[in-house]
Amino acid sequence: MKHTPYDLEKLLVKAYDSKLSENGVSGERLAKRLGRLSNIGLTEDNGSRRPGFSLQEREAKNCVIEWMKEAGLSVREDGAGNIIGRLDGKNPDKPVIMSGSHVDTVPNGGHFDGAIGVLSALEVAQAWKDTGYVPEKPFEVVVFTDEEGSRFNGGLTGSEAMMGDTDIDAMIAKRDFDGRPFEEVISDVGLTIDGFKHAKRAHTEIESFVEVHIEQGKRLEKEELPCGIVTGIAGPYWLKLTFQGLAGHAGNTPMTDRQDALVAAGHFIHYISHLPGKINDSAVATVGNIEVKPNGTNVIPGEVIVYVDIRDIYEDSRQELVSNIIGSAQTISESWNIRLEYETVHDVSPVPIKEELQEKLKEAARKAGIRPYSLPSGAGHDAMIVGQHLPSALLFVKSKDGISHNPAEWSDLNDCVRTVQVLKNYLETSQND
Amino acid sequence: MKHTPYDLEKLLVKAYDSKLSENGVSGERLAKRLGRLSNIGLTEDNGSRRPGFSLQEREAKNCVIEWMKEAGLSVREDGAGNIIGRLDGKNPDKPVIMSGSHVDTVPNGGHFDGAIGVLSALEVAQAWKDTGYVPEKPFEVVVFTDEEGSRFNGGLTGSEAMMGDTDIDAMIAKRDFDGRPFEEVISDVGLTIDGFKHAKRAHTEIESFVEVHIEQGKRLEKEELPCGIVTGIAGPYWLKLTFQGLAGHAGNTPMTDRQDALVAAGHFIHYISHLPGKINDSAVATVGNIEVKPNGTNVIPGEVIVYVDIRDIYEDSRQELVSNIIGSAQTISESWNIRLEYETVHDVSPVPIKEELQEKLKEAARKAGIRPYSLPSGAGHDAMIVGQHLPSALLFVKSKDGISHNPAEWSDLNDCVRTVQVLKNYLETSQND
Repeated sequence: MKHTPYDLEKLLVKAYDSKLSENGVSGERLAKRLGRLSNIGLTEDNGSRRPGFSLQEREAKNCVIEWMKEAGLSVREDGAGNIIGRLDGKNPDKPVIMSGSHVDTVPNGGHFDGAIGVLSALEVAQAWKDTGYVPEKPFEVVVFTDEEGSRFNGGLTGSEAMMGDTDIDAMIAKRDFDGRPFEEVISDVGLTIDGFKHAKRAHTEIESFVEVHIEQGKRLEKEELPCGIVTGIAGPYWLKLTFQGLAGHAGNTPMTDRQDALVAAGHFIHYISHLPGKINDSAVATVGNIEVKPNGTNVIPGEVIVYVDIRDIYEDSRQELVSNIIGSAQTISESWNIRLEYETVHDVSPVPIKEELQEKLKEAARKAGIRPYSLPSGAGHDAMIVGQHLPSALLFVKSKDGISHNPAEWSDLNDCVRTVQVLKNYLETSQND
Repeated sequence: MKHTPYDLEKLLVKAYDSKLSENGVSGERLAKRLGRLSNIGLTEDNGSRRPGFSLQEREAKNCVIEWMKEAGLSVREDGAGNIIGRLDGKNPDKPVIMSGSHVDTVPNGGHFDGAIGVLSALEVAQAWKDTGYVPEKPFEVVVFTDEEGSRFNGGLTGSEAMMGDTDIDAMIAKRDFDGRPFEEVISDVGLTIDGFKHAKRAHTEIESFVEVHIEQGKRLEKEELPCGIVTGIAGPYWLKLTFQGLAGHAGNTPMTDRQDALVAAGHFIHYISHLPGKINDSAVATVGNIEVKPNGTNVIPGEVIVYVDIRDIYEDSRQELVSNIIGSAQTISESWNIRLEYETVHDVSPVPIKEELQEKLKEAARKAGIRPYSLPSGAGHDAMIVGQHLPSALLFVKSKDGISHNPAEWSDLNDCVRTVQVLKNYLETSQND
């Protein structure tokens, strides 16, 4: 049987209205580049596997570097592996406007999350070059390292390093999904701890940041809009819980004599799925990661570790949810005679987006013939990290069925190209401030 | 800080009453050998890690081969890696009486499960040699390969092969915990598929089998007895369930829009822990093994596979429990909008022990000054496989706190040595049948 190779470019172009390729922006080029990246770390489900610090993430960065050069950008890499492509503009000493995202993915993710943000910024730079437009202020396209954090149960690693938020000691202590220490893993892609220590950039060098990202929800689909303007970002809070029971033989230990850590963890996972709805509609809690020891079919689990990802766009309601989840874990563990330990492993405050930037994006949308529509972001993004220090804006592209972090993730090329036009309008208006 | 090496031999001998070393049986030798095996695959918790077909299992077998030779046995290995040490006795053409167990362990198991059965049989052979006793019938000490099955989610591999129960095609299709195919894994320890095909032995060559094993329960401890006589063995039934949901972003997918496979699996694991108690006191059900895909902290689990180990000593009540568990999985999956698939991956019928063999073991216990006590076995053993074809007996040694498949697994040397005396009495009486 002949295996048909996955051809994302072809799938994208098939439904593309080529009249949208105008003002130097090319949908065909964007499709070609999305297609090229999709073949790096392609999984058997036609998904993407490019964990942070993998050779696949590195290869994707190398592609972007080539395209940056094609667009006339001067390229450099900082100590955290962030790739920065710079256009000096007419006034190279002014603070820069940055735009970009990431090219790493979750273990079996899609082809738009991250990639579309990097390629949208690149497309603007290429359109400027091709049409002879020279901006007043410097412009930089940036690829942040390891946004997803699926490798070290962390994430946003590159943007944190650039902003100076990295906790180096905590980072050194981390081990990846194969048990390898951080320093060893990053050396695979030519990075060092020392490089991370020096990746911080003076905030005065940067005027603002704008990121294009897929929505990963269904709001824009419901509104039949190609893109939308984000009002605020729900910061993730990651809780690590260890349920400590007693391993034993699955055949000879009566049900009444057990301290089964997985029964307690299962009870907990099921129970907490009801808690966010009691807080509000934007709150969510997810157990995506579980580790069972010893994980043998005929052994009662002695220890179970679960990670809970808790989010809301309001700080106070998110904290209430965290407290309720910890309280449930305590009550449930006690009822099963299981010892519980918990710790916070990741905590990013929700970030509001400045009114002024939202207004400018609305104006850019109107100019592109799109009704401006505002929505919150339930997911964290590099803009969330940069936004804690510098003015940052976030523009969402419509996601099919709201699916992401999954091979079925999809955004139509028409919507992507119209979003690039909004980004371009926004960046051009920003030259006059 | 100086690390104190684990010294099982010293721990065993410390509480040993050396007057129990009589009739050629040596508690000191037994302790030394248990100590030697404990150092093969010693874990950081002072447990044992000797998965089937590992180099550790092979090394343990090699130790036993040396000790077999010391006891004057002629050693051979069959195509499944089962080690057979033979004493011809006065009538080498008569069917053989076999005794033994296994030397593989679960991922972080104890030092007595399996090992004590092999070393007890060896101890009898050595005692016979040292006291000049020559049995009428041939006697064989046997080490069965891969009893625990933690590597391929199976188990009882060696005894099945010797009895001719192996499903070669199913075996070839298996992959181990690292995703490696069966044939590749067994080649690490010099075994081949072809060898497995020819490992079956004519049942007429064997008169009977007797296995010494730790109880892995608390009945003997409660009765203050060193050993007990097993009446029947609860066969394990392994059910593989796949909960198929939809992966998605943990931040941007509202709780009400989810098909979270782990929430459904957690609900199931918790719920079924209540079902065995509704059937009877000897029934048990355990989820020891779970696999979550993609297992990323910020991804809603798209697929969860769980294995349920279901046991009872009665065929009909075990079947009722299996049906109830499948029914629960169906109801729960439906309620969470999750697609369910299930299959039986292992099914061994409960095995009763012949009255006649039980009586002979009781007599052997009385002769050793021990009150005969009968009890069922909740765990499967090699005697369960052999017992489906040939007369087989099972003798349990007392387990401290009923703990097994855990580094805390323990049996006192006094109890072990008194059990060897019972085994020796039994084997000597069997010469006169």
